[in-house]
Amino acid sequence: MRLAVIGVGLIGGSFALALKAAKAVEHVVGVGRNSANLELARTRGIIDAVAADPASAARHADLVLVAAPVGQYARIFSALMSTKAVITDGGSTKRDVVATARKALGANLARFVPGHPIAGAERSGAAAADAELFRGRRVVLTPLKETSAEAASVVEEAWKQCGARVSRMDPAEHDAVLATVSHLPHLLAFALVHEVARRANSAELFSFAAGGFRDFTRIASSHPEMWRDICVANRDRVLDEVRRFSAKLDQVKALLERPAELEKLFAEAREARDKWIQSS
Amino acid sequence: MRLAVIGVGLIGGSFALALKAAKAVEHVVGVGRNSANLELARTRGIIDAVAADPASAARHADLVLVAAPVGQYARIFSALMSTKAVITDGGSTKRDVVATARKALGANLARFVPGHPIAGAERSGAAAADAELFRGRRVVLTPLKETSAEAASVVEEAWKQCGARVSRMDPAEHDAVLATVSHLPHLLAFALVHEVARRANSAELFSFAAGGFRDFTRIASSHPEMWRDICVANRDRVLDEVRRFSAKLDQVKALLERPAELEKLFAEAREARDKWIQSS
Repeated sequence: MRLAVIGVGLIGGSFALALKAAKAVEHVVGVGRNSANLELARTRGIIDAVAADPASAARHADLVLVAAPVGQYARIFSALMSTKAVITDGGSTKRDVVATARKALGANLARFVPGHPIAGAERSGAAAADAELFRGRRVVLTPLKETSAEAASVVEEAWKQCGARVSRMDPAEHDAVLATVSHLPHLLAFALVHEVARRANSAELFSFAAGGFRDFTRIASSHPEMWRDICVANRDRVLDEVRRFSAKLDQVKALLERPAELEKLFAEAREARDKWIQSS
Repeated sequence: MRLAVIGVGLIGGSFALALKAAKAVEHVVGVGRNSANLELARTRGIIDAVAADPASAARHADLVLVAAPVGQYARIFSALMSTKAVITDGGSTKRDVVATARKALGANLARFVPGHPIAGAERSGAAAADAELFRGRRVVLTPLKETSAEAASVVEEAWKQCGARVSRMDPAEHDAVLATVSHLPHLLAFALVHEVARRANSAELFSFAAGGFRDFTRIASSHPEMWRDICVANRDRVLDEVRRFSAKLDQVKALLERPAELEKLFAEAREARDKWIQSS
């Protein structure tokens, strides 16, 4: 199988490395805006060749992974309108990607299998690519009614070769689930760090922050442009989550006057989390 | 030096182990409500003897560490009213501890050096004790105007022997700083997990939660009773932090309509966090 990767960053680069390691792919061509990153990808053996643009990268490929920022998808999909390859993507939101694909892919929509590998990390670029990134991780595919069963199965098989656990979901359901378990926590972490950083005594505050704060805010070291795009694309769901969480905070605030109920909430949260950790 | 530890859990047990490892302490006597835990502490070499109550534990000690839940301090301090040992504690809040000590310690207030080792972990009990727990960690001492300089220096030296970085602070300042960098994040983590656990589709939600969610919510596996006591003792400061954070969330909510400003907030947060991580 020949693979084209549009955007050779953490996700695109790791997908190429994992498929090469699994001997599922023989040749990888990469496209990207950053030539130093592409050169690094070639040096690391992530890609075998560089193409000038998505159309030429896809020309001899069996599978194309679009792993660029979602803001570039319209242009990239237009360039893939007549490829014979199966197309998938790694975008963190799916309703917007599907809408863009419907407009830009034309008759090639049947070859498109929207996907989201849930394997974020605050590192980025080809330097961070890792053949093991997806092992045991979840990948959600959101095939459309137009998507051919064959294309969906090619993409599912590729992710399985990377060691991922593949699920299928409706794009709207995907965006709702991710808003709760990923987008909201990211917003909360960014907000907390920003709040602390803005205080007059921020240096003192940070100097007494410990491991709990470090882990809680790890995701606030994520890529600002990517998270802007996610929040914009999934704005309605994210807004809904922020509203629910604000209401929850109001409830917790009231419980500060009712210690027994506060302890019960803490205990229920701990129990739910421990159960989740044990089962995952 | 002979040490008495009232409450042989993570903090008390680790303090004893660290001082033994540093050969700063020859003999440790432990007191606690849970006899199985005390027996484990003896088996692990954390303590050398068990005393029936705080008064008898302190009788032949040079230093007493109170590392029990803060709710038990009034009773414990009353029992230490006539000890000749230097007294310190490991409570996570300091204004309430100081108020309790003023009422219960009588003339022995001069021997008391309130302290807080900032080395929380979601594990607890003698089983979790670790001689290296405090290495490189911060310990805040909040001596009172009545505290003797000699007592403060005994306690400071002991924590240094554990490898900790010792600071001195006013109790009110301590409680304000910790409300921001510790108590608020704990509340947010408990609230988020509780919110997710209460949803009708919580099983699906948890099954798609990844590493970001795991780290963000790690502190929601903390001890419910201990965190209830912290929130109650520091209620005014915690309330203030929850209010500020709610206002921040409202601001972030508004920025969902202004992508460039949202990205700027994300970028500023990332930069502040990365700077902190690099310097710590």
